[in-house]
Amino acid sequence: MVVVMKKDASRDQIESVNRVLESFGFSGHLINGVNRIVIGAVGDRQAFASLGLEALPGVEKVVPIMRPFKLVSREVQDHPTVINVKDARIGGEEITLVAGPCAVESLEQVMETAEKAKAAGARVLRGGAYKPRTSPYTFQGMELEGLKILHEAGTHTGLATITEIIDGPSLELACRYVDIVQVGARNMQNFGLLKAVGQVGKPVLLKRGLSATIEEWLMAAEYIMSEGNEQVILCERGIRTFETYTRNTLDLSAVPLVKDLSHLPVLVDPSHSTGAARLVGAMSKAAIAAGADGLLIEVHPDPRKALCDGPQSLTPDAFTQLAGELRGLAAAVGRTVPLPDQLNGRKN
Amino acid sequence: MVVVMKKDASRDQIESVNRVLESFGFSGHLINGVNRIVIGAVGDRQAFASLGLEALPGVEKVVPIMRPFKLVSREVQDHPTVINVKDARIGGEEITLVAGPCAVESLEQVMETAEKAKAAGARVLRGGAYKPRTSPYTFQGMELEGLKILHEAGTHTGLATITEIIDGPSLELACRYVDIVQVGARNMQNFGLLKAVGQVGKPVLLKRGLSATIEEWLMAAEYIMSEGNEQVILCERGIRTFETYTRNTLDLSAVPLVKDLSHLPVLVDPSHSTGAARLVGAMSKAAIAAGADGLLIEVHPDPRKALCDGPQSLTPDAFTQLAGELRGLAAAVGRTVPLPDQLNGRKN
Amino acid sequence: MVVVMKKDASRDQIESVNRVLESFGFSGHLINGVNRIVIGAVGDRQAFASLGLEALPGVEKVVPIMRPFKLVSREVQDHPTVINVKDARIGGEEITLVAGPCAVESLEQVMETAEKAKAAGARVLRGGAYKPRTSPYTFQGMELEGLKILHEAGTHTGLATITEIIDGPSLELACRYVDIVQVGARNMQNFGLLKAVGQVGKPVLLKRGLSATIEEWLMAAEYIMSEGNEQVILCERGIRTFETYTRNTLDLSAVPLVKDLSHLPVLVDPSHSTGAARLVGAMSKAAIAAGADGLLIEVHPDPRKALCDGPQSLTPDAFTQLAGELRGLAAAVGRTVPLPDQLNGRKN
Amino acid sequence: MVVVMKKDASRDQIESVNRVLESFGFSGHLINGVNRIVIGAVGDRQAFASLGLEALPGVEKVVPIMRPFKLVSREVQDHPTVINVKDARIGGEEITLVAGPCAVESLEQVMETAEKAKAAGARVLRGGAYKPRTSPYTFQGMELEGLKILHEAGTHTGLATITEIIDGPSLELACRYVDIVQVGARNMQNFGLLKAVGQVGKPVLLKRGLSATIEEWLMAAEYIMSEGNEQVILCERGIRTFETYTRNTLDLSAVPLVKDLSHLPVLVDPSHSTGAARLVGAMSKAAIAAGADGLLIEVHPDPRKALCDGPQSLTPDAFTQLAGELRGLAAAVGRTVPLPDQLNGRKN
Repeated sequence: MVVVMKKDASRDQIESVNRVLESFGFSGHLINGVNRIVIGAVGDRQAFASLGLEALPGVEKVVPIMRPFKLVSREVQDHPTVINVKDARIGGEEITLVAGPCAVESLEQVMETAEKAKAAGARVLRGGAYKPRTSPYTFQGMELEGLKILHEAGTHTGLATITEIIDGPSLELACRYVDIVQVGARNMQNFGLLKAVGQVGKPVLLKRGLSATIEEWLMAAEYIMSEGNEQVILCERGIRTFETYTRNTLDLSAVPLVKDLSHLPVLVDPSHSTGAARLVGAMSKAAIAAGADGLLIEVHPDPRKALCDGPQSLTPDAFTQLAGELRGLAAAVGRTVPLPDQLNGRKN
Repeated sequence: MVVVMKKDASRDQIESVNRVLESFGFSGHLINGVNRIVIGAVGDRQAFASLGLEALPGVEKVVPIMRPFKLVSREVQDHPTVINVKDARIGGEEITLVAGPCAVESLEQVMETAEKAKAAGARVLRGGAYKPRTSPYTFQGMELEGLKILHEAGTHTGLATITEIIDGPSLELACRYVDIVQVGARNMQNFGLLKAVGQVGKPVLLKRGLSATIEEWLMAAEYIMSEGNEQVILCERGIRTFETYTRNTLDLSAVPLVKDLSHLPVLVDPSHSTGAARLVGAMSKAAIAAGADGLLIEVHPDPRKALCDGPQSLTPDAFTQLAGELRGLAAAVGRTVPLPDQLNGRKN
Repeated sequence: MVVVMKKDASRDQIESVNRVLESFGFSGHLINGVNRIVIGAVGDRQAFASLGLEALPGVEKVVPIMRPFKLVSREVQDHPTVINVKDARIGGEEITLVAGPCAVESLEQVMETAEKAKAAGARVLRGGAYKPRTSPYTFQGMELEGLKILHEAGTHTGLATITEIIDGPSLELACRYVDIVQVGARNMQNFGLLKAVGQVGKPVLLKRGLSATIEEWLMAAEYIMSEGNEQVILCERGIRTFETYTRNTLDLSAVPLVKDLSHLPVLVDPSHSTGAARLVGAMSKAAIAAGADGLLIEVHPDPRKALCDGPQSLTPDAFTQLAGELRGLAAAVGRTVPLPDQLNGRKN
Repeated sequence: MVVVMKKDASRDQIESVNRVLESFGFSGHLINGVNRIVIGAVGDRQAFASLGLEALPGVEKVVPIMRPFKLVSREVQDHPTVINVKDARIGGEEITLVAGPCAVESLEQVMETAEKAKAAGARVLRGGAYKPRTSPYTFQGMELEGLKILHEAGTHTGLATITEIIDGPSLELACRYVDIVQVGARNMQNFGLLKAVGQVGKPVLLKRGLSATIEEWLMAAEYIMSEGNEQVILCERGIRTFETYTRNTLDLSAVPLVKDLSHLPVLVDPSHSTGAARLVGAMSKAAIAAGADGLLIEVHPDPRKALCDGPQSLTPDAFTQLAGELRGLAAAVGRTVPLPDQLNGRKN
């Protein structure tokens, strides 16, 4: 924390800042410059924030210099976290493919997708049972019925399952039926929900908020970890910018940055970020090249009939072809994409 | 809804789009251009979204042309909504001043602020009992104890009270102790919470999300109204941009725009948007000149000791002076800011 | 300038940073924290930038703490700059109204607009002779012919004139025919052009870039002033954000901020920022309430026939009515908007 | 172009829109919806823009539906453009590596970088002789002297050379000494400069503006092509967002998007976009995986002593290692990165 004094700050004002720092147990260090005085102090950033130094007379600005996250940080844990769910090793050497429809619509739809996704190399089945929608007049998801369908498809195929939860009741139900719970972009700073998922025994996939900084995203993960749940998976899904040709702007530089700052695994969602099926292939490859630990890809047996996000969904055939193309690419960066026949042989 | 076909779309592809439209009860109108075919159709936007037209072969893009909100719209109700809470007439001719600390810290702090705010012309007392904070390690609010303090200050001074709620339990408690419940920026698309506040009998202040478009903000209000609660107050509080000299960028053009599109009252929060006490005065005046129905201003007896957001809080004296300056300005746009002595004479 | 060392930085690495600082004549001050070492140094920010400290081993980040602008700053000149052009006193107590069409189209169009604008209280006539357009296939301006028309209208009415210049040749011509030259948003960081306008004896209106920070905008003004031209007028015209209901997002908090940081006058352009004539009135009022020294408003005798930006242009009648409404508002913030009959009596 | 009428638009107002369309040679097609009337018309987008339809009474909004670019478009030329400069085949099967320092500082610096870059597989040498800098007080480049150094290094090594030009005079000089001229991000909408580079016989590298949409970027390329220069290379270099951990946000989805819309080659600059040497490797790989035709990478013999952008520069050794890693990756997407020993054997 550095306190920059105004050019014309008086000796009294400088001493007053120092007294506040000392009264809270920090010791300030005066730096005399040509034009002005700067006071440096090292300590807990949150503690400083509560001192209200910016409101003191003579203070021009207060510059934070320490990162606020702890448990998610590489400084606390240097080796990468690997999260094991059924056959998936999220954050390990293997690229984890998560595939499935935006919304669970029927048992047939999910089962068909699950079987084809598994055959293509996916380890996790995704599907929305609770859909946060911009309009109250659109399809909001099959809810409990949808969770049961996911459970049946997961049991039948051996795939791990993931679904988005939106509040306490949906979290409670999801924990009974699926393997991984997802906190969506719109809930990334729903701190009550973060605390709640911090208290369950399931891995949590935390999507980056639509306009969340990387620091805020990591702080949201810190909320979950500070409640005791260490199984946090981060997922970059695009941020909001002025560009309108894509639904969001996929921020792939977040991937190496987060891998550098944190030990948590990072997945990428090329479907929601681009909003266009024809861009999913290129961005999936780019994500793996950037160091992502896996991909969330929307797959629907018939995208034209999808109840949500049809334009960005791949057909099962297109997904199978993409998975094949990703194998060579993963090898080039020292990773693997599982082959279909490897799937059943592995044991937990 | 307009479907733009690719330059080389075949006759079959065009007919196939038409068939999809017809099978759902819409009638498409072909427009033959020099370079390509465009198909126009009018109907419910949400219904179109579920058709998945963009995934059809030959389709280049689908352009929505109708606004998706209904109940919040001027087309449904032309006259402005006025919400009466104790002495406040939010959305009426009088500018509503909402004042108080970021966080409830003690009975003394709130009582002192409330009395001075009332004496300056405020009609509503604000104070946070549940604080959504970026870090799990910072002060999270006094919760129930804070609600009781607000209630006591409201009863004692006659001011209406408002507090942010963050989930079902806090909503239930807040409804017992305060007059208006607030949905914060981070919860603007927490659709479960929107539905929940749609079912209570209290007015709801809905802050615009950090990166919410005006359309998404109005759709969030539509969620609340579609559950039966018509007492919705909108509040612009700044959006996230690349500028770093201010905490957020206050989007004042949203005020006349929303007044044009919707009948709901619109307040402005110059404290959170700028993050700097020295900018609050100028932006308060600008907000009223732009047509806002009121202001949410952070006031703290001693900003240097505030447990949150000290740098953006006014002292009670500064607030009193600002309220005085606003009177002349309000008159210039045909509005009024109440004088202190008018307050007790009014009856509900 | 504060150098934050990595948690595990070695004694050698710290000394090496210190040696670099010393070798360039700065003295570093060590601050020993609980978790890490921080090195503070005060001096010229640009000098630090060239040290490349961030590339040294053990360095986590370098935090600049001083503002980079000098000549534009309140620290160099405390009293506001007032720029006198014909009857206009830009930056003085009087609000300067600048009115006219987006593009000069004909002598009749400009003359009619100029006379009506003058009668409504405008002091400056605007009109584009060189139009920077997104597409090479759209109308690019009347160029020299347009300058001559502006000159004739300025001479006839006594109004000062302003036009946008886009390169060396247009600057040279404009200096012969108009009173103020304008650097447009797209050229705000065209540094060669900034230097060129820094060498002419005419006032320069500098529009904020589409995505320029306030600091970059002030640095662009610094370029002009550093070449010797002290007659710089700043103009906020909206920044680019994700919102699509307005053409840009007018950042009115930039007005009090810039007035606080700099002595230069600040105008606001409510026409380009909103892109909608129906929002111009409200945002003009808001701009004056926020402390702006004047307004740039697009006025066209027949907006439907305008060759550019018709949807955001006011008719002369609408402008006259707005100017009237602004008079009361200006009075409420201690400013004036000139009355038509005051115009001819004043002498330079 | 679709004209959406207001709900209460009168028959007269609708006919008036139709008359305007017809008077300009367009034929409008009425679409009668349940709630309102929509008028569709197909034709040149720019022509519509000048009709000023939005200002007509009864009109709610006008929605453009056609893309405004022509010469850059895949619809005009389906096969990819390949630009040959010395040994480089930009846009061909081979990935083009462009390497060199941010600024030319001395012959030794450039020569050392050029030789090592060539040995690592680079085909083009970059170096700034004219530096657009935010502050007038920082190093602005060696200008003519810098161009001569680039020329000497290019002649000596056989590498093609590229440098940024900033105005007419620098363009004229650069055309004498280097092989490719670069239009920087800040000049992307300096339309005079675009026209000027459209008239020279050299390839032009056009960087995307800091906050340019993809459409605006392609329109800037259209400016160059419309003047007759077909040798345009696009370069994505990051856009401005709210994120502060990176200098800009690299928008890699622009790569497949632009390849889909246009036949022009697309390079990526991972150095300026991230601003951090430690992210350059990951983002270089991601760019190639996304389909980029090449990379612009800052390489400096001693980044700590660089006069500009040291923190984002690679050492020659780091560049050599990265080029090696890129070879395997390129192969996985059907491309190649040249091997050092292939360089001299090739003939034009």
